[in-house]
Parts: sequence; C-alpha cells; structure tokens
Amino acid sequence: MNIQEIIAKKRDKKELSTKEIDFFIQSYTRGEIEDYQASALIMCIYINGMTEREITDLTISMVNSGEVLDMSDLGTVIDKHSTGGVGDKVTLILAPLISSLGLPVAKMSGRGLGYTGGTIDKLNSIPGYKTDIEIEQFKENVKKIGISIIGQTMNLAPADKKIYALRDSINAVGSIPLIVSSIMSKKIAAGADKIVLDVTYGSGAFMKTMEQAEELSKVLVKVGKLAGKDTECVITPMEQPLGKAVGNSLEVIEAIEFLKGNMLEDVKDVVLELGSHMIKLAKKGDDLEKNKERMLENIFNGKAFDKFKQLVENQGGDVSYIENTDKFEKAKYIMEVKINKSGEIKSLDAEKIGNLCVLLGAGRIKKEDKIDSSVGIVLEKKTGEYIKEDDIVAYVHSNDKEIGEEVVEKLKELYCV
Amino acid sequence: MNIQEIIAKKRDKKELSTKEIDFFIQSYTRGEIEDYQASALIMCIYINGMTEREITDLTISMVNSGEVLDMSDLGTVIDKHSTGGVGDKVTLILAPLISSLGLPVAKMSGRGLGYTGGTIDKLNSIPGYKTDIEIEQFKENVKKIGISIIGQTMNLAPADKKIYALRDSINAVGSIPLIVSSIMSKKIAAGADKIVLDVTYGSGAFMKTMEQAEELSKVLVKVGKLAGKDTECVITPMEQPLGKAVGNSLEVIEAIEFLKGNMLEDVKDVVLELGSHMIKLAKKGDDLEKNKERMLENIFNGKAFDKFKQLVENQGGDVSYIENTDKFEKAKYIMEVKINKSGEIKSLDAEKIGNLCVLLGAGRIKKEDKIDSSVGIVLEKKTGEYIKEDDIVAYVHSNDKEIGEEVVEKLKELYCV
Repeated sequence: MNIQEIIAKKRDKKELSTKEIDFFIQSYTRGEIEDYQASALIMCIYINGMTEREITDLTISMVNSGEVLDMSDLGTVIDKHSTGGVGDKVTLILAPLISSLGLPVAKMSGRGLGYTGGTIDKLNSIPGYKTDIEIEQFKENVKKIGISIIGQTMNLAPADKKIYALRDSINAVGSIPLIVSSIMSKKIAAGADKIVLDVTYGSGAFMKTMEQAEELSKVLVKVGKLAGKDTECVITPMEQPLGKAVGNSLEVIEAIEFLKGNMLEDVKDVVLELGSHMIKLAKKGDDLEKNKERMLENIFNGKAFDKFKQLVENQGGDVSYIENTDKFEKAKYIMEVKINKSGEIKSLDAEKIGNLCVLLGAGRIKKEDKIDSSVGIVLEKKTGEYIKEDDIVAYVHSNDKEIGEEVVEKLKELYCV
Repeated sequence: MNIQEIIAKKRDKKELSTKEIDFFIQSYTRGEIEDYQASALIMCIYINGMTEREITDLTISMVNSGEVLDMSDLGTVIDKHSTGGVGDKVTLILAPLISSLGLPVAKMSGRGLGYTGGTIDKLNSIPGYKTDIEIEQFKENVKKIGISIIGQTMNLAPADKKIYALRDSINAVGSIPLIVSSIMSKKIAAGADKIVLDVTYGSGAFMKTMEQAEELSKVLVKVGKLAGKDTECVITPMEQPLGKAVGNSLEVIEAIEFLKGNMLEDVKDVVLELGSHMIKLAKKGDDLEKNKERMLENIFNGKAFDKFKQLVENQGGDVSYIENTDKFEKAKYIMEVKINKSGEIKSLDAEKIGNLCVLLGAGRIKKEDKIDSSVGIVLEKKTGEYIKEDDIVAYVHSNDKEIGEEVVEKLKELYCV
C-alpha cells in the first residue's frame, strides 16, 4: 500500500477501504507521508466526497492516532459541542446546569482560534481557575462534585490537528467528510459515550445556510451511530452573536447572570434545546418539554448557579468573583457606540464582530497569541430591534485607545439599519 | 490575490484568470507558495480540468518563470518532441536528416528519467561529444553547419521542474492541462517557432489509448496556436520499443545504421512522418509524400549520415566511432535470450523493457544516478513475428553477471507467445 495509489483512488472517485484510510492517517501522523501528499488527498476528498462508511473509518482512525480518554468508570458521559459561534457561552451555562440535574459532566474544552472563542479561554479569565489538571484529578473531581472542565492536556486525535492546519492553508475547510471526522474524532477521543451537537449556520458558522447545516447534521448522526456513539444534533442560527457579550470575562459575566435567572432569549433557546436532548440521551427523561422545565427549575432555585460556584472553587478559582462580578478587571476604555440613525436593525454579521474582538485582543490569530481577558464588545441592540438616533447600540471594551476607536467605527458599519 | 482564493476557484470548477495563473506560477517558482498548497491546486486542476485559454496562460507563465532562448537570428527554428518512448532514437536520426535538407536544427535535449531514455545520454556515449556548450557557441554551430544538439544548460521553465516533481509524488501526471503546459513551456522556452510533436500511446507512453493520444493532440495543437507557435502532432503507437535496441550506445549504433540506409520499418515510419511535417511547417514543401521521398533520397545519397558525422566532429566527438561502430565499448556480458516456445509473439511491454534497462544501468531512477552507456537490450524478435523454439529472441548487454541473468529471466516472461 502506498499514498500515491490511495490518492489515485480518491482522485478517480472510488471508495477507500478501511485499511487504506488507516494507512493514510497513521502514516501521516507519524510524519511518513509528506504534507504535499496529504493535501492532495484532502483536496480529492473535498471534491469527490466520501461515503458514510469511509467517514466513520476516517473518524475512528483519527481517534486511534493519539491517546483516548477512558471515562467508563464515570458512567455514561454525554458531551456537548458547537460547530462554531461568536459569543457562544452555552457550555459555561449548560455544564453546571446539567450537572445540577445529576448528569456527570467531564469536559475537555479547546482554546479559541480565529473569530470563535474557546471555553477554556473564558474560564481562564476567572482568577485562579486551573485548566491544566492531571487526568486522575479530573476524574476525581467528576466523582466528587459531578463536574470538571479542563483544557486539552492529552494528545487527543493528533491527526486532526495536522489535517486541520492543512485544510486551513489550502482552503479545504468546508467539506462534510472533513468536518464530521474532525468533530467526532475529538469527542470520541475525549471519552464521550453520547454526543449532542449544536450545528450552527449563518455568517458566524462554517455552514452558511440551514440546508447545509441539515445535511451536516444527518451525516454527524449517521457516523455517530456507525461509530457506536449515539449522537443528536440541534440546528441553531448564528447570523449574529449569541447573547450580548463577546469577549472572555464579559461572556463569563453574562453566563453568571443567566445562571442567576437573568436569561437572554436567544441564549435560553439554545441552552434549553441542547440540555433537553442531553437529558434524553442520558435516559433521564424522554419528554423534551419536561426536561426544559426541570432545567428552568434548577435555574430559579439556584442549584445550577451553586454548581457553577462549586466547579470554580474545586478547580482553584476565586469564587468571590462569581458572587460579585464587579470584581472582574475592567478594560481601560469602555466606549459607547451610537450610529445616529433610527429604524429597525436588519443584520449584524457575527463573523465580523468576532474578528473585531480578535483585533481588540480577545482572540487569537496564531496559536501562540496571548489573550486579553477583559476586552470585547457588548451589544445592547441586536437584529430585529428598533433604535432611535441617540440610542447606545453597543459598548466596546478596549485596553488601547486607538484600537478601541477603530473598532467603534467598524462596528458602526456592521449595524445595517 | 492569494493562493487560497485561487485554490477555492479551481476547486469549485471556475475558470482562473490570466493574472491568477501567473500569480501561482511566479510565486511558486520563487518559493513563496508552499508545496502543500501547490499540490492542492494541482489536484484541483487534475480533477476539474482547464479551458484551452487557461492552459495557454499556464504554458506562457511557465515559460516566463525562467530564461527564454532567443533564436530569432537563426531563422525559423522547428523543434521536435516525443511525449515519451522506449528505444526512441528518432531525434538522433531526424536531426541530421532534416538539417541535411537545409532546415536549421538547434536542439536542447533533456536527460532521461525513469524508463524513458534521453537523447543527451545517448549522445554522451560517443567519446568526446560535448553537450554542455555555451549558448553563443551553440548558435554559432547552427549558423556554421546547420545543426547543434546540446543539453539543457539554461534555466528553462523552472516552474515546470517544480510542478513535475510534485505531480509525480501525488499521482497527478496523466492530466491533459498539466502535460500540455509541461511540454509546450519547455519547447517555447527553448526558442522553438514551430513544433512537431510525436504523441505516443500504449504501454510505453503516458497516454494508454489512441483516443487519449488524439485528445491530447487536439489540445496541444490548439494551445500551440493560441501561444503563437504553429504545432502539429503525429500519433504513433508505443506498445513495444521502437526499433531493436534499448540502451544508450546500442541506440546510437542503430541510428547510425539507419542513416547508412539500414532502416527498420517501425523507426522509418516515425522518422518519415515527423520529418515530412517538419518540412511542411518550415514552408519547404506542402506535399508530405514528396517530403518523405526527399528524406529517403538524403539517406541513400549519404548526405544525412555526413551531416551526423559533421555534428559529432563539430561538438568534439570522435568520428572514428561513427565510421566504425565496432569501436564502441561493449558490455562485459552479452547474453542470449531464448524462450523455448514457438508461435506468434503477441505482446512485448515497452514500459517493462524500459524498466529492465534501468535495472541494467542504462537509465536513472533518481536525477543524480550515473548512466552506463554500454548496457541495454537488443530485441531480435518483436510483436507480430513468428518464432521457433531455438530462436534467439533478444540479447541482454550487462556489466554485471547476476543482474544480467535476472534481466534475461524477466525478459523471457515479457514475451507473450
């Protein structure tokens, strides 16, 4: 078997065997296949596609390219993943909420890259919160308090990391076989038994239309089934940022407000939808509407918020910040954004807002970039709302005056009235 | 403009602009585009194809990636090229023959790689023959005696070299846009005004069927026209080696025999066909049959052979070898091949015979490999001939006994009776 033959088969639209797929993935991970050969094969997969059987083999082979976290001693672990969003603080809310209902939450989360923020970066804005914990301690935490959220300390699906970097540099990101194998391999390697996926569509997501999101969902569910991991998908729009805040500590504060009962509608919809499916997959309730009621109950009785404080405390974080969010360090400049127009807001591009936050220092362009926890954007007015001329539509939080002013100007242009 | 956008366009089957193609070729030649990005684009071109306009732009851009030989002071220069063959000594015969009819021959020839031999390697088997001559001297030779054949001393179409190496390693060789731009860019950079191409098909060629060769020819002619270089194609079979000899000095000897009037039918057909088109393109005769007669005349009156001796002498070669081919160094072992069967020979795979000659040392696997001039195979019996049990069907010329014996055994298997 050699890579040239494998390339030729997929180039000619033939189906690759399990062995051929595994040969490619393992040899490429070990550095025995050149990047320029891998990129040729990836482009063949992009153009000619893969069957669900091939995608499942690709996923499993990517899982086997690295370490696999065994969480069988924790019971059924249900993981949640979003295919990408701006202002997406859902994990910060959903994890303690679900845990407060008795489902074990053992979550390894990624760092953000590009316009999409990472849950770990957000948690790192809480002083003291440790994200690099040993695996044994991580599991102990889950056994003790029912929840732990840490960074990716293990070498999970290294094939995915290599392939993802290539895909980015050759413009082969938006391909269903490649997206599905990337998502599912990371979830399976992280020990998930069952998976609920938030498949987003719109300007802030990989999939630009609902039809594309539906197609992706179908394949995700099918591949999950073939790989022996029950998977459900919830399709949600990501035309504009989720909630009001975009930026690390700003989103933590919004999540805390939510857990205290001050819920924004769009965030609430996504949280309840995903959570109700997680409860169902955990066989703790088949009726989605009833599941949602139970979740709301645990918001209003304070159990979800208590669980969040317990999580923070257990991982070394300073709970006084959670109890009083005024303690979070503020950016030096908090600038008002007014657009001097009146009328209905027609659109507010999520990806572009994400990129403005990267410009402020809230995200990374390169993996090595440092994150500034305090900066970001808070949207006071969003799509569908009516504004008057002197309304403040948003605040820009910046530690640099010039950059802040630049972002204010660019943000104004994003408001289509 | 960036390479990712260009990849995405061709990935989505769109037509690339002249500027986009030139951006890719020049940036890649300068090393500003990574191999893995180039290989992704090449695979998109392989799968999604290119229009004739795009192929012409690709060709011209590849010409401009390096030096271009200006031969305008020599009059109309007509070049000849074969798309690949085994035992192809046509250039050795055709060049002096055409020159003896008054057409200037200024030819830069390549070295062989893989199972296809190179004209320059063959000429190097003549003691003293210099193939690395300065360009000014090269042109002086043509002005003085009407002919010169040298190696590629200039940096002609370096983009083609880089792309060709990639195509080989990612199995993207057999693509018409890539084959056409590779052939035409080298010919145009070498100063050709008009081009006659021997498009081969069969086991010893890139194109496996006549239909593929016809398709390739059509595009070659069209792109030649768009690039302002009149191009004609002759389609010839390359199922089995051309003539009897495969190997460097062995082929030179066969070429000398031809020029002395001892012509093998298959070689004669190709030589006359190509030559008659070259004379026509040079506007020295529109009637192809009459052109062939004039060529045969110059074989029988010795003028073509004299021109070959003049070429060799003028480039420092020892003409006594040409006058008495017994002087060529013989391989240590000349082994008879008998197959102990009788009947008609059904096939004789050209590519596999070429590979056996590489094994003997007559060709290169890597660019750095040294060539053994004296070794090779002489086929006494070829496809379509009837043999008796004790007929000698071939001779293997080897400088290593064991390798020679191995080649004898493998050659026997290639004779399908």
